[in-house]
Amino acid sequence: MSWHIAAPDGTLAAAIERKIDTKTKPLGALGQLEALARQVALVQQTLTPQLRRPHVLVFAADHGIARAGVSQYPPEVTHQMVRNFAGGGAAINVFCRQNGLGLTIVDAGVRGSFADLGDAVRDEKIAEGTQSFAQGPAMTAAQCADALARGACLADELGAAGCNVLGLGEMGIGNTSAAAVLMHVLTGRPLAECVGRGTGLDAAGLARKLAVLAQAVGAQPVDAADPRAVLATFGGFEIAQMVGALLRAAEHRMLLLIDGFIASAALLVAARLVPEILAYCVFCHESDEQGHRLLLAELGGRPLLRLGLRLGEGTGCALAYPLVQAAVNFLNEMASFESAGVSDDSGTAAG
Amino acid sequence: MSWHIAAPDGTLAAAIERKIDTKTKPLGALGQLEALARQVALVQQTLTPQLRRPHVLVFAADHGIARAGVSQYPPEVTHQMVRNFAGGGAAINVFCRQNGLGLTIVDAGVRGSFADLGDAVRDEKIAEGTQSFAQGPAMTAAQCADALARGACLADELGAAGCNVLGLGEMGIGNTSAAAVLMHVLTGRPLAECVGRGTGLDAAGLARKLAVLAQAVGAQPVDAADPRAVLATFGGFEIAQMVGALLRAAEHRMLLLIDGFIASAALLVAARLVPEILAYCVFCHESDEQGHRLLLAELGGRPLLRLGLRLGEGTGCALAYPLVQAAVNFLNEMASFESAGVSDDSGTAAG
Repeated sequence: MSWHIAAPDGTLAAAIERKIDTKTKPLGALGQLEALARQVALVQQTLTPQLRRPHVLVFAADHGIARAGVSQYPPEVTHQMVRNFAGGGAAINVFCRQNGLGLTIVDAGVRGSFADLGDAVRDEKIAEGTQSFAQGPAMTAAQCADALARGACLADELGAAGCNVLGLGEMGIGNTSAAAVLMHVLTGRPLAECVGRGTGLDAAGLARKLAVLAQAVGAQPVDAADPRAVLATFGGFEIAQMVGALLRAAEHRMLLLIDGFIASAALLVAARLVPEILAYCVFCHESDEQGHRLLLAELGGRPLLRLGLRLGEGTGCALAYPLVQAAVNFLNEMASFESAGVSDDSGTAAG
Repeated sequence: MSWHIAAPDGTLAAAIERKIDTKTKPLGALGQLEALARQVALVQQTLTPQLRRPHVLVFAADHGIARAGVSQYPPEVTHQMVRNFAGGGAAINVFCRQNGLGLTIVDAGVRGSFADLGDAVRDEKIAEGTQSFAQGPAMTAAQCADALARGACLADELGAAGCNVLGLGEMGIGNTSAAAVLMHVLTGRPLAECVGRGTGLDAAGLARKLAVLAQAVGAQPVDAADPRAVLATFGGFEIAQMVGALLRAAEHRMLLLIDGFIASAALLVAARLVPEILAYCVFCHESDEQGHRLLLAELGGRPLLRLGLRLGEGTGCALAYPLVQAAVNFLNEMASFESAGVSDDSGTAAG
């Protein structure tokens, strides 16, 4: 599978800038929303961008490494939380309902069946969780390719249904471990900078997690310059499906809402495969998970929110979405100095 | 006029905490939203808070000091922008429409008439702008009392109509100068730390503004321990009406959405009169105006957004409002570990 992502054409940039600068506000007074408006207009190649059918895909999967005592929560919580998503009771359900985003829950590789839930959980299960990368590769190359393809297929479906804004979330006990190791191997940063408290480890738990991961990484020879191999060795099925969804969605020129640490690790893999993807990404928040700030810096991302969130599920995407709407709306709806008859900063009454 | 604001009773605090901590998420994983949920529940004295008829009042007024060359924009822009608000073309119109907040534009003391606009602008004009505090007090004690009473009356009306969330915005060329001097006199911080670029002064403009304000402050003897006198000497009619609206709204136990530098300066005056008001305040953003960060620290405020905004108008309130909704919604709508049958962090499956 190869990917074809074009960086947005810059021809419109000057016209977009002019449109922003003639709005009835001091130059630059909407701060980061102005940069966001510029980005959305460029991604959509228009002076009048529109956000259509915004959607969050939540990918869930189990991790073999979770059995090694790297998480505060027992592995069965992944399965239980998928049932909670299906029932509408999780934070991501609440925030998507509030802000008008569609939501699909994807079983990318959770232990146990959701057949009794019918359409409420999309079955894209690769296997009943990954193998522990403390013992060998988390998945086979074939499983990794399957996961990428299934993620891409979901993005295709949403694109066909008219969606042009895609948020990606995840659930998987153990997945901050996978994400931390992906970050460590792909960026070369010390493992201790990449590993954090996840769902709430104390200092002793964090030290144990770091020790487990250091040993596991040392035992798995992998070519850091081969992002697919790194993903297969240390990733999770939810992370691999996110990578596929991100890449295909960017091919469709969708705006990509990037959530927290795990979603950013998926993006890191995607960006190592096709760097042009970064032009399509809105960094929704800086999470409280150690490592996320550094990972955002690595990706060149400036987060919209810094609320100390560390929940995942795509909650940062759903919470930041009204700011993306605000950027598009001011660009489309605000009056210009001329149309409103307001003096610009030269003191000359326009219009 | 005296004010009677009770700090929220803390009896419910433990029950609120318990409700938050049994939601299906790791402890503390919703970060600042959890603190916000706690605050709203305490302000409303209930485990199931509701946000009703959220509203933004935008107060506009002219400032005598604006004629002293302290702003990038000519004074007539205040009047022009009120017409823009009335026509629905300003940023605050766009963001209130988007996020479902009501909006009232108040002429607190703008030069020129809006009679031709009918109900689109609420007439609470104290005078055609303040006097320049470079020459004498900005307003008389009677004008200041009138402004406080009119602001309070607007809060009464909204309260009677069922509003329990009030955002306050402003427009007034020259009002970052008034706000900076209020901050300087009431906090004792050096004037240079309080004065910023406003709508976009360059370094030379900033130096001139600082020189003008330093001279004006030196020429106006005022008792810094008397907030009303400080307000009358250096304030604006929009700032004074905001102070009255803030104090009365807190008496009504409304949640107060605090915008940027000028709104925070109004709150500083209000808090010097009745410190209990701070329990009702949500600090919506940290603006790009120099001095706002320090002013937030002075008020003990932790902002929800840091987007480099410096527009005023109440735009920070309207942009942050979905986060306030999110805090209330997760508290009311998320499942608990027990109700969802999800294991808590002890590993015991609940429910």
